Amino acid sequence: MSQPEQTTTFDLDAAAFRAHEGGKLEVRATKPLRDRDDLSLLYTPGVADVCLAIAEDPSLSRRFTARNNTVAVVSDGTAVLGLGDIGPLGAMPVMEGKAVLFKHFGGVDAIPVTLESGSVDELVEAVVRLAPSFGGINLEDISAPRCFDIERRLRERLDIPVFHDDQHGTAIVVLAGLINACRVLDRPMSSLTVAVSGAGAAGVAVTQLLQLAGVTDIVVCDSRGVIEPGRADLVAHKQQLADTTNPRGLRGSLGDALVGADVYVGVSGGTVPEEQVATMAPDPIIFALANPNPEVHPDVAHRYASIVATGRSDYPNQINNVLAFPGIFRGALDAGGVQISEEMKLAAARAIADLVEEPSADLIVPPVFQEGVAEAVAAAVAAHAS
Amino acid sequence: MSQPEQTTTFDLDAAAFRAHEGGKLEVRATKPLRDRDDLSLLYTPGVADVCLAIAEDPSLSRRFTARNNTVAVVSDGTAVLGLGDIGPLGAMPVMEGKAVLFKHFGGVDAIPVTLESGSVDELVEAVVRLAPSFGGINLEDISAPRCFDIERRLRERLDIPVFHDDQHGTAIVVLAGLINACRVLDRPMSSLTVAVSGAGAAGVAVTQLLQLAGVTDIVVCDSRGVIEPGRADLVAHKQQLADTTNPRGLRGSLGDALVGADVYVGVSGGTVPEEQVATMAPDPIIFALANPNPEVHPDVAHRYASIVATGRSDYPNQINNVLAFPGIFRGALDAGGVQISEEMKLAAARAIADLVEEPSADLIVPPVFQEGVAEAVAAAVAAHAS
Repeated sequence: MSQPEQTTTFDLDAAAFRAHEGGKLEVRATKPLRDRDDLSLLYTPGVADVCLAIAEDPSLSRRFTARNNTVAVVSDGTAVLGLGDIGPLGAMPVMEGKAVLFKHFGGVDAIPVTLESGSVDELVEAVVRLAPSFGGINLEDISAPRCFDIERRLRERLDIPVFHDDQHGTAIVVLAGLINACRVLDRPMSSLTVAVSGAGAAGVAVTQLLQLAGVTDIVVCDSRGVIEPGRADLVAHKQQLADTTNPRGLRGSLGDALVGADVYVGVSGGTVPEEQVATMAPDPIIFALANPNPEVHPDVAHRYASIVATGRSDYPNQINNVLAFPGIFRGALDAGGVQISEEMKLAAARAIADLVEEPSADLIVPPVFQEGVAEAVAAAVAAHAS
Repeated sequence: MSQPEQTTTFDLDAAAFRAHEGGKLEVRATKPLRDRDDLSLLYTPGVADVCLAIAEDPSLSRRFTARNNTVAVVSDGTAVLGLGDIGPLGAMPVMEGKAVLFKHFGGVDAIPVTLESGSVDELVEAVVRLAPSFGGINLEDISAPRCFDIERRLRERLDIPVFHDDQHGTAIVVLAGLINACRVLDRPMSSLTVAVSGAGAAGVAVTQLLQLAGVTDIVVCDSRGVIEPGRADLVAHKQQLADTTNPRGLRGSLGDALVGADVYVGVSGGTVPEEQVATMAPDPIIFALANPNPEVHPDVAHRYASIVATGRSDYPNQINNVLAFPGIFRGALDAGGVQISEEMKLAAARAIADLVEEPSADLIVPPVFQEGVAEAVAAAVAAHAS
């Protein structure tokens, strides 16, 4: 096509733009189409019996179409990376990137499906309607609190795995890291006091999965401070956090929550002042996961903490969802397209942790390109399919 | 996955099933992902600027995502081949096959999107919502008369090409064949009397495109006979046919329409009795396109007709949509993702006809695997983009 004159403020010749020229994905045939004989098998008239057999027994669609290896990466672009609501077209490069990772690490064919945003009802209806083409739905970069309702309702209505990666992918890798941090420091998970900063998609899921793994003392903070039952401003998912966390009944700010805390998990952005970090328990664990600017700079964190993790690739201990989602879906698809249960998430986190042969302060999760991660996660997930 | 015990009546070891094992498509990265440097370009943090640039100027999505080469093949499975309403799962093998053809012939990345069926409103809403991911929408195997409203409303609401192939793909190749049939027989298109059997998706579109190409005397028949203003049973699209065709005011059955007709176009199924074929004008043209059983068997047709075409690959003159749709979308995408106009369809038909260097009674359209068809169609389509 002819390009209209661009007036963008971005340097379209920069390396990242050059890497994205023409997009990052293509669709290819897996069967040869050489001549009319091939055509008559892959298309009419040969295809007719395959269609009729599937119409008679829908489970055959998993065997005779690509559906059982195909996941839709669904987003409405309302919470893309740290960029906010940039819409479905703006979200596409991320969804294509996700699809590249799905294939590279998990052998999963993933298709970006970015949707015009709308109400929870509208998005649920759209995804339910397009679900027959797919073996699973990976929700991505959908703003909270809508993401919670959308995922819950899709799980109720669909019989394929539905997984909001910003929630559960993050939670699984955080738990994997914390398992190994506890191994390194020889502390039981159940003894930890944890302060979570951020009550959006990641904060909620991290809290729930850590609880499931045996952490009992978690205080969650949003931008207004500690989430506790006395607050009058809580939307539903925060009210639920208030009811299920904060066993010591703290009130106040994140600073109050950090006093004496063993673990800080930041999934919020913003900055934690060094003097607050200094009030944590001795030798704390700091997961400052905001990207590209961790809530506690690693240099600052290391003055106090024994173990520091970030979301960045240029520091040790990168908490990166790519350690989880390719294997999660690989396992769920291998098990016949089952829903992803809490037990599967726990098993995935443990599998990731176990892939680090000798955990140390600078190695609590495997590097992103370590071989065999998705395979191990997939096996753990599939083993927990009922 | 473990396959449950199958109770199907189909032979799952037959060649067509073996050809469909595991499906026919995969999604692949077009950019290398070798190390963390690649990852940081294709995904975070490098992707962020690309997202922001597109959010600022949405037209950049055509350049920096795969969208401009990606078409959704959308069906609800309500009118699949001649198989009827077999649902979205049953339709998938056809949509995957279509995607294989899109890539092979047109270099277009096509993604099957089979939808749970619903009302016209519901299907339109679903397609509008998922449209941002795609550079075009190929509608497929959606039952009439819903297909007319769905296509019309999607064309009104979307700024990308929307094309119902069962209508227009068929019409374009029929017109191409008729152009060359007229060349072989040295008859002007405007002199022809045409009887169309079938007032569904294909029948309506064939009629409209032949009219646009200069055919003035077309009589359309449905299962109840000639469509004419005196009938009280006509739904909207048939009422429109009644108002715009049948200039001689015929009434009665298809048999009445065939008397003295120069051309028969069958897109209906069923069988035309030989004694009715015998009443056509001398040396008629017979396009009996029902698959796999033409309305007039070629052996019967040849007793009367100078030129016979079918939808089958084992007879000469196969009227196959694959001659049109890959090039149609290739051209529309190359032209920047424009809507497909009537002029483009005419140009496509003429381009296909012109690809036959020396038309003869047994060669009125190019063979499906003739090289350069999609390229020529694409060039003709793009040349008519305004």
